[in-house]
Amino acid sequence: MTTLGDLGEHEAIRRLTALLGEHPDVATGPGDDCAVVRIPSASVDQVITTDPLVEGIHFLSNEIPERIGNKAAGRVLSDLAAMGARPMWLLVNIVAPSDQDAVYLERIYAGMNALCSRFGAAIIGGDLAQGPQLELHVFGIGQLPVGTALLRSGARPGDRVFVTGPLGGSLSGRHLDFVPRVEEGLFLRESGLVHALIDLSDGMATDLRHVLDQSGVGAVLEVDSIPKTGTLDGALYDGEDFELLGTVSSDNAEELCVQWEKRFGLSLALIGTVTDEPAVMKLRHQDGQEELLTSGAYEHYRR
Amino acid sequence: MTTLGDLGEHEAIRRLTALLGEHPDVATGPGDDCAVVRIPSASVDQVITTDPLVEGIHFLSNEIPERIGNKAAGRVLSDLAAMGARPMWLLVNIVAPSDQDAVYLERIYAGMNALCSRFGAAIIGGDLAQGPQLELHVFGIGQLPVGTALLRSGARPGDRVFVTGPLGGSLSGRHLDFVPRVEEGLFLRESGLVHALIDLSDGMATDLRHVLDQSGVGAVLEVDSIPKTGTLDGALYDGEDFELLGTVSSDNAEELCVQWEKRFGLSLALIGTVTDEPAVMKLRHQDGQEELLTSGAYEHYRR
Repeated sequence: MTTLGDLGEHEAIRRLTALLGEHPDVATGPGDDCAVVRIPSASVDQVITTDPLVEGIHFLSNEIPERIGNKAAGRVLSDLAAMGARPMWLLVNIVAPSDQDAVYLERIYAGMNALCSRFGAAIIGGDLAQGPQLELHVFGIGQLPVGTALLRSGARPGDRVFVTGPLGGSLSGRHLDFVPRVEEGLFLRESGLVHALIDLSDGMATDLRHVLDQSGVGAVLEVDSIPKTGTLDGALYDGEDFELLGTVSSDNAEELCVQWEKRFGLSLALIGTVTDEPAVMKLRHQDGQEELLTSGAYEHYRR
Repeated sequence: MTTLGDLGEHEAIRRLTALLGEHPDVATGPGDDCAVVRIPSASVDQVITTDPLVEGIHFLSNEIPERIGNKAAGRVLSDLAAMGARPMWLLVNIVAPSDQDAVYLERIYAGMNALCSRFGAAIIGGDLAQGPQLELHVFGIGQLPVGTALLRSGARPGDRVFVTGPLGGSLSGRHLDFVPRVEEGLFLRESGLVHALIDLSDGMATDLRHVLDQSGVGAVLEVDSIPKTGTLDGALYDGEDFELLGTVSSDNAEELCVQWEKRFGLSLALIGTVTDEPAVMKLRHQDGQEELLTSGAYEHYRR
C-alpha cells in the first residue's frame, strides 16, 4: 500500500489531478493559485480557489479566534490576489466537535468577516459538520476582466523577479495577522506590465519554483536584494509570508517600481532575473559566487 | 459556555449567518440550497454551494471508495439541481491522515469524476491537508439564465406539492449510490411552471418545513399520495433521499405531470397542497382525519 505519507502532498495532488477531465469553459485548470473560468457573455472571468485550515497544523487550539478567522479568509484572498482578481464571495465549511464553544466560532466568523468587508467581499454560504477537531474550509471566488488573469506560467527569460514585501519569520505571528495583498494584486494586474504572479505561502524558494516549472524557465536571485525580516534561510524557506512574487520585463521594471512607489509609498523589491535554463534556480552572492537553490519548504505528509 | 451540542446544527448556523454582511451582487444569500450571484453583463446567474462529507458521519470507514466519491459529488450536484441549475465546476478539499492509502483516494476521485462527467461538470481544483480522519469538502458552481433560480421561498397558497421519486430507506444503500436529479431540476426550471424547489437531504418533513418557513405558508400532505420505498415514517423522516420536492400552481399541476411523464416515462407524484396557514404542516389520512406533522430528522450535534 502506498500512503499519503509515502508520496507527500504535492505528488498526491499531482496523482489526483491527473485523473481529472477537461471542461470547455475552463481557461486555467488545477495548478495555479486559482482556476480560471469563462462565463457566457460576461465581461469578467472568475478565479476560484479553496484552502483548508486545520487545528494543530495551521493554528494552535488555544489561538485567539479572530486571528484564526483572519488567516482562514486571508489565505483565500491571497490566492485571489495572486491572479490579480477582485475578491467577491466566500463559502465556509466548518468541522467541529460537539463540545465546541459556539461563541468561539462566532468570533472566528467575526475575524473572517472583518477581513472580507475590508476588501468588499462577502461570505455567502457554507455548512457545519461534526468532527473530532476544528477545521475551516474556505472557498473563494474573484473576478477580473476576461483574459487578464496573472498566471504562474507567464515568466519569460530576461524578466526581472519582484516581491511585494519582506520575507521570513511569519511563524512569530504574522502568519495569523497578515493582510492579503489584494490591493497590490489589483494594481499589478491593472498596470498591464506583469507577466507572472504567485502568492508566497509555501516559502519563497518553493513558490518561485512553481513559477519556473510552469513557465519553463530558470532564475538567478541576488542575495543582497531579497528583503528579509530575519535570516536569508528564513526569507527563502519560511512559509506563509503571503506577499506576492511576480515577474516583469526588464524594460518595464523601473516603470513598475516608480508606479508602485507612487501608489503604495514603498519600494517594490527587484530580487533577481529570469533565465532560459529551465528549472535551474540559483542564488548569487555579493562576491559574484553562485549556488544552486533547492526547495525545502513545509509540505503536508512529508516525513 | 454554550456548545454546538447545546445549540444543534441549525441554530448554530443561524447564529453564524446572522453575523454576515450584505453584498450588492448577491441575489440570494445563505438559507437556500445554494447562494445565487450576479455576474457583470453575463446572460447567466451562478448558484454556489458547499457540502462536507465526514468519515463516521456521512460514510463508514470501510466503504467502497467510488461510492464515497459518488456521494460527495452527488450531494453538491443535488443542491445545484434544487435551484434548476446546470452543474459546471467543483472544487474538492480532502483531509486525510498520513497513513491514508493513496489509491483509495484516487478511487474516491474516480467516483466523483464519473458522476461529474455524466452531467458535463468538471472538478477544477482543490487542496489536500493532514488531519485525523478522512473528509471531503466539495464546493460547486452551477449556472442558469439570469433571474430563473428556483428558490425555497416561492411556494404560494393553493399550490400543489410534488416529489420526483419514492422516499425513505436510503440508509440501506441508496444514500451512496443515488443519482442527483440534475436533468429533472433543469426540466422543472425550463418548464416555467414551478414556484419553489428543494432537494430532500434531511428528511422530507424537515425539508418541506424549510419551504414552508421561507414561503410563509403551510401544507397538507395526503398520506396515500406519498411514494414510499417502505414505511410512512421512513418516507417522512429518513434523510438523504436526494429527490426533489417542489410546488406548482394547481392550474398547471396536470400540465406539469403530463410533460414530466412524456420526458421521463415516470409519473410525478402530487402529494399535497400548500395552505395559507404559515408553518402549519398537516398529514391527511385516507379517512379524512388530519394530524400535525413535526420535523424529526437527523441534525448534526443534536443529542
